[in-house]
Formats: sequence, C-alpha cells, structure tokens
Amino acid sequence: MKKTLVLLTCIVGTIMLIRTQKSKAEDGYRLWLRYDQIENDSLLNEYRQLVKCITINGESPTMIVAREEIVGGLSGLFGNSVSENEEVKEGTLLIGTPENSLTISSLLADKTLEDIGNEGFLVFSAEVNKQKMTVITGNTDIGVLYGVYHFLKLIQTHQSITELNISGTPKIQHRLLNHWDNLDRKVERGYAGFSLWKWNTLPDYIDPRYKDYARANASVGINGTVITNVNANAQVLTPEYLEKVAALADVFRPYGIRVYLTARFSAPMEIGGLQTADPLQENVIDWWNNKTKEIYSYIPDFGGFLVKANSEGQPGPQNYGRSHAEGANLMARAVKPYNGIVMWRAFVYSNEEPEDRAKQAYNEFKPLDGKFEDNVLIQVKNGPIDFQPREPFHPLFGAMEQTPTMMEFQVTQEYLGQDIHLTYLAPLYEECLHSDTYAKGAGSEVFKVINGSLFDYSETGMAGVSNIGDDRNWCGHPIAQANWYALGQLAWDPEAASEEIAKGWIRMTYSNNQEVIDTMLKIMMISREAGVNYRTPLGLHHQMAWHHHYGPGPWIKDKPRADWTSAYYNKADETGIGFDRTKTGSNAISQYFSPLDEIFGNIETCPEELLLWFHHVPWDFKMKSGNTLWEELCLKYYKGVDQVREMQDTWNTLKGKIDEERFQHVQSLLKIQLEDAIEWRNACLLYYQTFSKMPIPEKYEQPDKSLEHYMKVDRKYLPGS
Amino acid sequence: MKKTLVLLTCIVGTIMLIRTQKSKAEDGYRLWLRYDQIENDSLLNEYRQLVKCITINGESPTMIVAREEIVGGLSGLFGNSVSENEEVKEGTLLIGTPENSLTISSLLADKTLEDIGNEGFLVFSAEVNKQKMTVITGNTDIGVLYGVYHFLKLIQTHQSITELNISGTPKIQHRLLNHWDNLDRKVERGYAGFSLWKWNTLPDYIDPRYKDYARANASVGINGTVITNVNANAQVLTPEYLEKVAALADVFRPYGIRVYLTARFSAPMEIGGLQTADPLQENVIDWWNNKTKEIYSYIPDFGGFLVKANSEGQPGPQNYGRSHAEGANLMARAVKPYNGIVMWRAFVYSNEEPEDRAKQAYNEFKPLDGKFEDNVLIQVKNGPIDFQPREPFHPLFGAMEQTPTMMEFQVTQEYLGQDIHLTYLAPLYEECLHSDTYAKGAGSEVFKVINGSLFDYSETGMAGVSNIGDDRNWCGHPIAQANWYALGQLAWDPEAASEEIAKGWIRMTYSNNQEVIDTMLKIMMISREAGVNYRTPLGLHHQMAWHHHYGPGPWIKDKPRADWTSAYYNKADETGIGFDRTKTGSNAISQYFSPLDEIFGNIETCPEELLLWFHHVPWDFKMKSGNTLWEELCLKYYKGVDQVREMQDTWNTLKGKIDEERFQHVQSLLKIQLEDAIEWRNACLLYYQTFSKMPIPEKYEQPDKSLEHYMKVDRKYLPGS
Repeated sequence: MKKTLVLLTCIVGTIMLIRTQKSKAEDGYRLWLRYDQIENDSLLNEYRQLVKCITINGESPTMIVAREEIVGGLSGLFGNSVSENEEVKEGTLLIGTPENSLTISSLLADKTLEDIGNEGFLVFSAEVNKQKMTVITGNTDIGVLYGVYHFLKLIQTHQSITELNISGTPKIQHRLLNHWDNLDRKVERGYAGFSLWKWNTLPDYIDPRYKDYARANASVGINGTVITNVNANAQVLTPEYLEKVAALADVFRPYGIRVYLTARFSAPMEIGGLQTADPLQENVIDWWNNKTKEIYSYIPDFGGFLVKANSEGQPGPQNYGRSHAEGANLMARAVKPYNGIVMWRAFVYSNEEPEDRAKQAYNEFKPLDGKFEDNVLIQVKNGPIDFQPREPFHPLFGAMEQTPTMMEFQVTQEYLGQDIHLTYLAPLYEECLHSDTYAKGAGSEVFKVINGSLFDYSETGMAGVSNIGDDRNWCGHPIAQANWYALGQLAWDPEAASEEIAKGWIRMTYSNNQEVIDTMLKIMMISREAGVNYRTPLGLHHQMAWHHHYGPGPWIKDKPRADWTSAYYNKADETGIGFDRTKTGSNAISQYFSPLDEIFGNIETCPEELLLWFHHVPWDFKMKSGNTLWEELCLKYYKGVDQVREMQDTWNTLKGKIDEERFQHVQSLLKIQLEDAIEWRNACLLYYQTFSKMPIPEKYEQPDKSLEHYMKVDRKYLPGS
Repeated sequence: MKKTLVLLTCIVGTIMLIRTQKSKAEDGYRLWLRYDQIENDSLLNEYRQLVKCITINGESPTMIVAREEIVGGLSGLFGNSVSENEEVKEGTLLIGTPENSLTISSLLADKTLEDIGNEGFLVFSAEVNKQKMTVITGNTDIGVLYGVYHFLKLIQTHQSITELNISGTPKIQHRLLNHWDNLDRKVERGYAGFSLWKWNTLPDYIDPRYKDYARANASVGINGTVITNVNANAQVLTPEYLEKVAALADVFRPYGIRVYLTARFSAPMEIGGLQTADPLQENVIDWWNNKTKEIYSYIPDFGGFLVKANSEGQPGPQNYGRSHAEGANLMARAVKPYNGIVMWRAFVYSNEEPEDRAKQAYNEFKPLDGKFEDNVLIQVKNGPIDFQPREPFHPLFGAMEQTPTMMEFQVTQEYLGQDIHLTYLAPLYEECLHSDTYAKGAGSEVFKVINGSLFDYSETGMAGVSNIGDDRNWCGHPIAQANWYALGQLAWDPEAASEEIAKGWIRMTYSNNQEVIDTMLKIMMISREAGVNYRTPLGLHHQMAWHHHYGPGPWIKDKPRADWTSAYYNKADETGIGFDRTKTGSNAISQYFSPLDEIFGNIETCPEELLLWFHHVPWDFKMKSGNTLWEELCLKYYKGVDQVREMQDTWNTLKGKIDEERFQHVQSLLKIQLEDAIEWRNACLLYYQTFSKMPIPEKYEQPDKSLEHYMKVDRKYLPGS
C-alpha cells in the first residue's frame, strides 16, 4: 500500500514536473502557484541540500492533496523529481500530524500545538539522530496543508529555510469568497467571464478547474465559498441543484473549503409551495428545518447560509412585519444542529426612507444587537454606502457588542475600473481594518472587531465578493489576481500589511528579481489612491453613470430612486459641494463613537480625504495646503491622471524583464485606463464647475471636450451589469 | 536582414518547440494544430531525413506567419529545432512563390500554376542538382500558407512525404464562419462561453487568442469571418466599433481571412439619423455608400455584408414595400467598387402568412432570380425549416439559375445537443451536399450548385454558423471542434467525404493509433443518426421545447406563433402523424424538380427517413420493414438510445489510450447525453401514443416516468438561448 503510494507520488511528481516547466504560456492561469524552476543556481543548490526527500504521513483526502502539492511544487521549483522515502534521514522534509507520525510527536515534546488551533501549522527545522530535517505539522490535516503552502511560498519567494521556526494560525474563523454567480452562469458585477460553476454539466462532469480553484483558495487560507448570488434564486435549494452543489463540495472538501449557499427568504413559497415565508409561522420554520436537513444529507459539512433580505427588492422578514433578527434566527436555528452559520447582510436601505442612506443599516441593526442566535454573523460592507473607492469605515463596526459583525470587502472592482483598470485593493482593505472605531476607547481598530478580540465574539468572519470568472486568467485584469490573493491573506491575518502582501504576490506570480518587485510594487501601491483621485477625491462618492458603474456621471439626478443618483451624494450647488452629515445635516456622525463624531463633524478636523463625505463645503474653503476647495479638487483630479501616466511609464520599464504576454496585456489596459481617467477628471470637474464658476487653474492641461460631450458618452454592452 | 530573420526564426522555433511539447495540459486549446513530437521513431527518422532544413522566401505578413507555422510545427513534430538555410541542399523544404524564388520558378518549368488559382498550392518532391527536396508553392503567399498547412497535416497524420505531387485548390470562393455574436459578448445559440471578441478592450488590447483563431481557420481553408450576429446591431457600423473591427481584421489578414459584418437594414435610421431606410430613397443610398466608404477606410479588404432582413423581427426592404432584391442591391452597389459582396439570407418566413413555413423562402426568392446585382449571394440554410437534425435539402438549391445560392450550415448544435451531446455534423452536411436536385436532370447535386459548376455562378460560397466561444477548448464539447474543422474542409472541397475528414481530424487532434482512430470514427459516424433517432426520426422535425431548443416538447401548441410550435409540424392526431406536404396538403413537393416531387409526393416512394416530413401517415401504415408506422417509430426511438449506449461503451474502450482529461470530459458528457436521449424518446413516444393508442412493444424497456412528468420538466438557465 505504502509502495503504491510512493510510486503514485513519483508519477504525480513527474507529471507535475512536466506541468510546471517554464514552457507554460504566460496566460495567468497558474496564478501564484507557478512552481517554475528556481533560476538562482546557488539558492537552488542550497534548497536541494536542505530538502532531499519527503516523508509524508496520512492518507486522508487532505493529505493526498498535500502530498500532490508538495511533491509537485518542489519538483517544479527544484527542476528534479523529489521523491518520498519512509525513513527519516538528512534532508528530509517531514510532513504530518503528531497522530500519524511518531517522529513528529517526539519532536513536539518541547513545542505545543495548543495555540495554533484547528487550522494552524508549525514549520520548523529539527534534528533527529543528528540528521537535519524540516518539519511541517499541525493539529489537523488541513493545518498541515496550510503549512505545506506556507513552506512552498518560502521557497517560491526565495526565503531562507535553514533555521525555520514558524507558526501560523488564522486570526479569523470564516474566511470566505462570495460569488455573485447566477444559475445561468452570468456573474453580477463579474467582469472576468461566466461563472466557474458549469451547472449544466454538474454533477456528471467535474471541470478540472474546480480543483485549481480550490488549490488557489487553500493556498491563501480561504476556507469557505458562497457559490451563489446574494440576489438569490431559490432553485439552488432544490434536489436537482443540491446534487450539483454536493459535487462541487466534494472537490473543495480536501482543501478545507466548505460550501455555503445564499438563501432566498421567500424560498418556502417559491419552491416549497407555502403561502407565506413569515419566519414565525410553524410551517415556514418546519420547511427551513426540513430543507436544511436535506441539504446536509447532500453536503455533510455544508457551511450555512448567506442572506440578503429586505434590500434592493429582495424579500425578507420585514415583508411580514418581522425583524431582521427574527428572520436570521429562523435559519440560524435550522443550521445550528449541524454547526452551520448564518451570515446576514447589513446592506439594507430603502429609498422610501427619507433618512440618509449612509445611516440606515446602523439604524436597523444597532437596536437588534444581542437579539441574534449565536451562530449568526452580521455581514457588513467596509463602508456605509457601497464599495466606493474611499469610504469611512462602517459605523456598525464597533457598535455591535453582542452580535458578531463580519467584514464584507469587494474584490471585484465594481467601482474601481472593473476588468480594465489596474487597482490593487489591499490598501483600501488595510485602511478600513486599521481605522479606529474608539468603541472601547483609542485602539479599538476595526480589525479587532473583526478578529473577535474587542468583544470576544464567538464567531468571526471576513468575506470578499469574488472577482473570479472563467476567463483564462481568472480575474480579467492580470493584476486583479492580487486582490483575490490579498483578500485571503487579510482574512488569515487582518493585521497583515498590504505592501508585504503585494511583495509576496509579485514574487510568486511574476519574479523574484528585485527590480521587478520594486517596479510592480510602486505601481500597485499607488493604484488605489490614483483611482480615488481621478474619480471621487476628498470624500466624494457615488458619482458614476446611471446604466453602469464604470464611467463618470456626476450629473445623474431626477431618477425614480434619488439614492441611486449622483446628485443625492454630491449635493453640488453654488454654495459648495459635499454631503452634510454633521449635526446640521443628516447627523450620520452621531453613529460614530467619540471622539470620531467630533473629529468627523468638525470641518477643521475632519480628515481631508473624507471632507466631502461629511461636509457641504464652500468652494472657496481654505484647505490645509492653502488651496481653495475648488483648487484642491482640481489638484486631486489632475494628480489622479498624472498617477496613471506614472503607472504607465513605470510599467513600461518592465519590458523584457517579465514575460511579453502579460507585459503587453497590462500595457494595453493602462492605455485605456488613462483615457478613462481623463474622462473621469474632465467630466467631473466640468460638471462641478457649473456650480463653482471657477476656472480650472491655467497650469493644468484644459479639458479638450465639453461637458455636453461627456454627458453624451453612452457606454454600452459593458459586462457584469 | 536575412540573418536577423534566420535568428528570429530560430528563436521562434525554439519557443514553439517548447510550446508544443507533450507537457501541455490536454484542455483542447490547441485544436488540431498540436505539433507534438512524433512517437514512431522510424517514421520520425524518415521525416528528419527528408526535411533537414527550410528555405523560405518572401517577407510579407503572410509569409512571416507561414514561416512561424512551418518552423514551429516541424520543430515540434520532429522534437528538434529545424533551422533555415539560404542555399538549397539535400533535404531542403523549399517554400515560396515563383516570383520570389528562382529555384521554384525553374522547377515549375514543367508544371503549371494556372489551374490552382489565387488560393491553391502545390506540394511536390523535386531534385535540384541531384539534391532531393520538397517544394511548397502557389501563385500567392496565401496559397503557399495553405500548402504549409497541408504539408504539416501530411506529417501530423503520418503520411508518406517521399514522392509528393499534390495540388490543392478550393472549390468554393467564399468559405466563411458566421458568428452570431452580440456586442455584449453573448452569443446567440452559442454554447461555448462568451464571444471571442473582447469589444471593451479592443482596439488597444489584442488577445493572443485572436491569432490562434485565425491560425485554426487558415489551417482548414476558411477565408472569411462574419464577426457579428445576423440579428444585427447597427452600432458595429459606428466609427467607435469600426476601429475595433479593423484591429481584428489586422490580426486576421496575414492568414488570408477577410472580415465581414452583418448590416442592420435600419442602420441609416438608428445611427444615421435618417427618417427612413427605404432602399430606393436617395439619402438612404447615399448613406450606405458613405458608410461603406468609411468602412473601407478602416478595413481596406473588408469582405462585405451579411444581411438577415424581414425575418423574425429584423427590419428589411419589405417594410417599405420593396423586394429583397431591391434591398440587397442597395448594399451590393455600395460595396461593389471595393470588390465586396453581399450575402442575403433566404431564411425568411412569417407567421402572418398562412403558407407552410417550409415553402415561404422559395416563394419569396424564386421569382427574384436574376434580379440581383452580380455581387449578391443568396445564403440558404441546408433545409427549408431550420437546422433540424434531418431535413430534405432546401428547394432553393437548383432553383436559382442566375443568382448564386450559397450554403449556410449550422456548426453550433442548436438542435443537436448544444455543448452536451456528441454529434459529428459532417454526415449531415454531406447528405445535403450530395442530394440530387435534378435541376438539370440526374446528377445535379447540391454541391454542384454550391461550387458554381451547375449554373456557372460568378460567386460561390459556404458559411457555417460558428460554434466557437471563449471556452478554453473553443467549442464546449471536445468533439465539437470536429464540426468546425469539417465545415472548413467541406467549404474547401464540398465533395470531401465526412469519414475521411473525421479520420484526419482524429489523427491530428487525438492520435495516429489505429485503434483510437477506428474507435473514435465509429462513435462520430453514428452520432448524428443517433441524434435523429432519439429526437425526430422518420422525417419528424421541430419537436423541441418552447423556451429552449435542447430538450423535447412535442406537445407544444397554442402559442402566439403557430409556426414556432411542435404541433404545427407533427400534426399528430388519431389518424396518424406527419405534415402533408403533397398535393393534398401544402404541396411543398412542387418546389422540387421532377422526379423528386413525385418521389417525395408518393408515400410509397418517399424515403422513409423523410416520410413524416412530406406525409401525414396512418399509425398502422406498413413500413418497408413490415412494421407499422407506430412500431417503426418505436424502433427508431429505441435504436437512438441504444446507439448512445453503444457510443458510451465504445468510448470507454479508449480509457488509457488517449489523455485522461479529454477522455473523462467526453465520458461525463455521454452520461448526460444518455439521460437526455431517454427523455427525448420517452417524452415523444408517450405523447404520440396519446394519439396512436398503441402500446410500446413489450420487448422494449418501458418508460419509467409518465408523460405528465416529462411535460413538467422545466429546463432553466440554459446557455445560448
């Protein structure tokens, strides 16, 4: 049996070796799991000395994939087949849990696995009978798999592996992707092709890509995936589809990834034949209990439900005069016996409500704190509006002491250039996570809410709205893969620095050449701020076009829903621009803890990057720079465009230093991005100028087209909308 | 200069060598242009002796791609870099035209290039100064490129290349794909992902796939592509899009492929601001003339227009009381100065017309014969209804003496299992092409109409409605690539045999192993008949569901359009089943030449496979087999399902003989196909049985579900509809 496995591993190793040669088309399919042979010979020899063979214990599905990954990965990186052996000798990479390896067990005498939990790992250098070796272990097979990916990353990024003593533990329990994928395979806000899930051919045909998807997620620590759109379709809960979902879950399971579904609140009526979906009705409760039982019969480790209720047309408990808590608890009680969770979205607002949209979620959920079952998490977008290029953190973070709030970031670039603009999002995530809520005084950062430490939450979570489709390179823009990667890394450790994450990603995905790293890093690290500058600087928000969220439309007004128009948010008039959310306005500042409410509420202390979020500011208001507001606005818009030019120039220096295929792809897209940035700048400034009546300073290149021209731009046939 | 080219070619060669190693994932991306190293060593050595180096003349864009292809192809097939040299020596592969190679010119002393036309090629063995060599030549660079692909195919398919004397000339001028691709990248009746054309990033980003698309087409002789849907969108004729179209045309041009667009008849109103699109109005004529001039300013070799007019809601000349000829001539005159053509579709029918739908196109176009400009081709679907699994040939073939009729086949499997069912379509194409129209007496086969020989047409054409999308393997089902390939081969030579085409495709795409060839051939060659048998045997047609064209719906009736219902076509009642198109019925037989009208019109002589197309037949009618019609119907439906089982069993014998990835993919899809075939059989027989009142013979497995069950099957979220 063991021999068969060794043989099998050798074969797998050989296949993987071939698979991972540098001959691959650089089409981005391999993401950051490239495993190309190390070009630095001295480093390669050093690694080869330190890892001569592998002893891997355990034969669970997870250990089988761990074996596949480490044997294939090292064989690729080393350029030679790395074989398995049974006995431990000099240069062994020893992999397993203390349960299945006596050697590991004995080596752990002076170490503890207690602190690393169910998913953590240790990677350390050791000696057995004076033979130097390296150990990858954990309490569980999945912990070991994470350790394997970590070890591979060390080598992929050319780190030393001589004196290792690393422990890794995720700081957040539920680390999820949210796929807004419909059953017809269209992806809402998806810009990278159709959904990966080929419902038509499931469960019979298992696309090899499902496994590569799982590998990529596991390698960055993602342990759950909600595979259906929050604008939900009850059909996915029918047996026909559950069979298909189960087939996906079977592929993902060895990689530690649980499957979740979105639950349409009215499903009992739509597929259950009931007359109501009232969460307090006995037959509705029974229906969800039975349906949940059925789901678990297909998928024993089903993760639970994600629900968008009473929001943007989705049904919910309020249709029956019930609260969000009553709705969420209905489902939470159904999944509780199976250790499932419910993620209930806080993204609720109504245009029939006269209240500032930014305040509505807090108003709705704050009073319900403590009224939810303990397996409910409230899933809150990073900011109070909707994934804008810059928002303040959502005031619900810190406000819910007794109910876990989990983070929802958007990885797909709905408002940040979709599949065209280069935008590295981790700085946005980082900015939010490091915002201080002051919920328990200074030092109550959002990441402490999210990781559960501030309020000792029983459940913790972070979700990213996926940017993945069936485009060959997964995410459309070659650099957009970094956002998927970063989401995983930040869900694992919300204190991780965006710059460090980018460095690791660049090394694994492009090159360990320092010049390449520095160059790409420079571009990635300014990209988000550039995107803010040429779209919505100084706290402006929601200034996009009506039919899509790609280009500018600051003039959008007088539509059926005011809260979907730009004028609602910019409030531009002859006196100034910006949304007064102070006490004289909507008083949204009151949803923040002191002293933030005062800081935000005072035009002099409000951070300038959020100024127009919280204040209606006169055109001639003096900014810290000495500029008037209008001048500063011009400065920011022009700076944004200049930053794109800088990104272009910087990218062009990579010619010949990275592969031509991806070089050209990004280069082409930056060209479009520059045109778009100029459009955003000109369109917005020309429109705001109709109120400010002030000239665009002469030192700037003047818009060469009229406001009318920009207002007539009619982008059609954009994907994902 | 020459040295640089040689060096460049070596580099290209090396890259291609690496690219084409057997290490490639077998995901189908490479189609039939795999160029993997030949495994048969003696054959390989023989080839290496015969082709030691390459001398290739000419530096046009076409010759550059010919060089790329031959150097890369041979380097891959031989497993070693095949270099270029300037002088001719033993074992040289000499490539070029007589114009750019004196050696070729001298060798052609006793051969003529006159017969092979602008696109033909010669491949022959020769001796120069007693040095044996091989020559690929033609009158034009594109002829040479076709010769290169032919030569590569000889090697790919393990043919002898010792004493070559081959000439190849296309028998049809316009060999086109029709892409029913929309500007939002959805593909009507497309089942293989989104459109290849990424309009959003054109013209800036040139996806490398555009070139691979062109390579594949050129390799099978396709020389034109209509890149937009026949249900047309005038936007593509605006400068914004023409710039994008031009970028595609630039990629395709070196491969001899011209770009065509669909022209929406009402474009002068929609994008031109006119009040009318009346083809006789001066301003409309001017608009088309100016628009055409503009198009040619972007694309100097633009091919022309494809038009669907006055059909299924599309605007057309009849909106203004004008004829199809008046409409077509408007555009034909506009493109004539630039050598463009107009392909005017004959697929017209109206539900407001009481006439049998099968007759309407003939009735419309036959009287217009001779009234079209000489650069108009009437594009006629193979059969008079709509790409059904089996139809008689369209009566317009043979009926238009003075106006070229060109063939429109459907490559995408709208009615033949879409991306799920294995269906090799070349037998369907072949059946149609070899049908005798009797237009000039016996021996007036459709292929003679199409190749122009019967009526000495000035223009000839064949189009295939593309099955290509951005799925990694291009066509969804792995075997569906064969239909793209076959369309190209039959457009080049409409007399080619479907079986020979399949053999070539299998050899290039899977294996030269005889067992693999025989096995796959067996499956492919029964697949279409199986599809007829389990769907619509004995001349039944149009029995699909209402919302999609994938599953059965023989019960569909009482819909707003009768001609879109199944009942309209099956006419099932207690007396029998089938559409009476004889003199007692719609008299559609009168559209066929004698003696076909009598043969089809007589229930005793009508070919049984078309019986219910032309006759309403009593349930107890005695078939040639001695069975009653009902028994024969049962026999056919059961046979169809059995054939799928046979396909499954046969496919399973390929386990281990081809790559696992494609093996499993097809195996999985055959499982679904079997379930679907059973559904088609049971649903249809149970429904027809409500009229026949006869039992399904006991010897057959009886349907295990009720008619009601099948009528409730509600397939949702199918692609392409």
